[in-house]
Amino acid sequence: MKTEKTTPSRYRDRADYDPETIYSIFDAATLCTLAYMDQDVPMQIPTIFCRIGNQIMIHGSVGSHMIRTISDGRPVSISVALMDALVLARSVFNHSMNYRSVVMFSKAGIITDPEEKLDMFRLFTEKLIPGRWADVSQPTALEVAKTTVLVFDISEASAKIRTGPPIDDDIYMDQPVWAGIIPLESRWGTPEQDITNGQVPDLPEYLKR
Amino acid sequence: MKTEKTTPSRYRDRADYDPETIYSIFDAATLCTLAYMDQDVPMQIPTIFCRIGNQIMIHGSVGSHMIRTISDGRPVSISVALMDALVLARSVFNHSMNYRSVVMFSKAGIITDPEEKLDMFRLFTEKLIPGRWADVSQPTALEVAKTTVLVFDISEASAKIRTGPPIDDDIYMDQPVWAGIIPLESRWGTPEQDITNGQVPDLPEYLKR
Repeated sequence: MKTEKTTPSRYRDRADYDPETIYSIFDAATLCTLAYMDQDVPMQIPTIFCRIGNQIMIHGSVGSHMIRTISDGRPVSISVALMDALVLARSVFNHSMNYRSVVMFSKAGIITDPEEKLDMFRLFTEKLIPGRWADVSQPTALEVAKTTVLVFDISEASAKIRTGPPIDDDIYMDQPVWAGIIPLESRWGTPEQDITNGQVPDLPEYLKR
Repeated sequence: MKTEKTTPSRYRDRADYDPETIYSIFDAATLCTLAYMDQDVPMQIPTIFCRIGNQIMIHGSVGSHMIRTISDGRPVSISVALMDALVLARSVFNHSMNYRSVVMFSKAGIITDPEEKLDMFRLFTEKLIPGRWADVSQPTALEVAKTTVLVFDISEASAKIRTGPPIDDDIYMDQPVWAGIIPLESRWGTPEQDITNGQVPDLPEYLKR
């Protein structure tokens, strides 16, 4: 997976081409950014996604301009980035951040078989909210037909990761200034029920996480 | 700021061109994604940034391929996306998410004056960690010279926002299934001090947040 395009010009020691590392970063993210050329414009759109095996899957309305444009198989790139901490060094110059990111290059494949699309929706739903699929009204044939499912092979991708404490130049190491990391934590909050239909079902077990 | 490029093809009611709305989303984000065309490849790179007035500022090594490439003033796009909640409807099809995003189109301007660059570093540092700048070793002339500062006018940008509860089709409203939102919360964790230089300064007031 190491190609000219996936070799960073800076901090090459932070680059990682191991598929399991790349998968784990994709799996920890909910949103990706998809970029492509539209006439002379470098377009990009943040979108929700799911990794399934060695592919990234996105979906959207058959009427979406982005979906229709990239369905022609033009080159696209997809990235995810997770910020884990601010890294505070003793000099401004050596401040940094801990992060995990992936940039990949690919092109869209279209899933057209309704059964296969339905299976994609199930996998996508179950990745985001395990247990949800069986509990709710599943897509009708019309809803499946109104949605395009695109998949992208993860064949040219690289991760970039920074972890650990600040690294200061020696000349700054005697500075009596607080140095270290400030973690950024992300977590699910308390579910807020919508009771506009007059029903108040208990919170299902699968949402008590 | 509404142009053909910044008009979404779907959910146009979620689009917002108000500068204050756009600024507030940029200010709530730490990472942006920068996309540009490099030969025939739609490149994109996640990077840390800062909004200063009506501009986005990024910085990087003078040796960075991305920095050098976009310094020629080619078209770039920049996006940020913040996920606020999963939105659980009564049907799979109406599941959604609450989010705030901005996509903008621009091109790089280069800050060359060392004093102006230093001022940018100060504003950037103070945005991320208010109070930090005066406490640490500030950039040397050499460090300033080794860093390129690029700015991008926020002149063609649009925000897209979804808030609120799920919206189900009427035919699903009698389903006795839990519906509502699950907020995603982000917050700074407990600072972890680096004591490799043998000094243990107290946590400064400005980090007790």
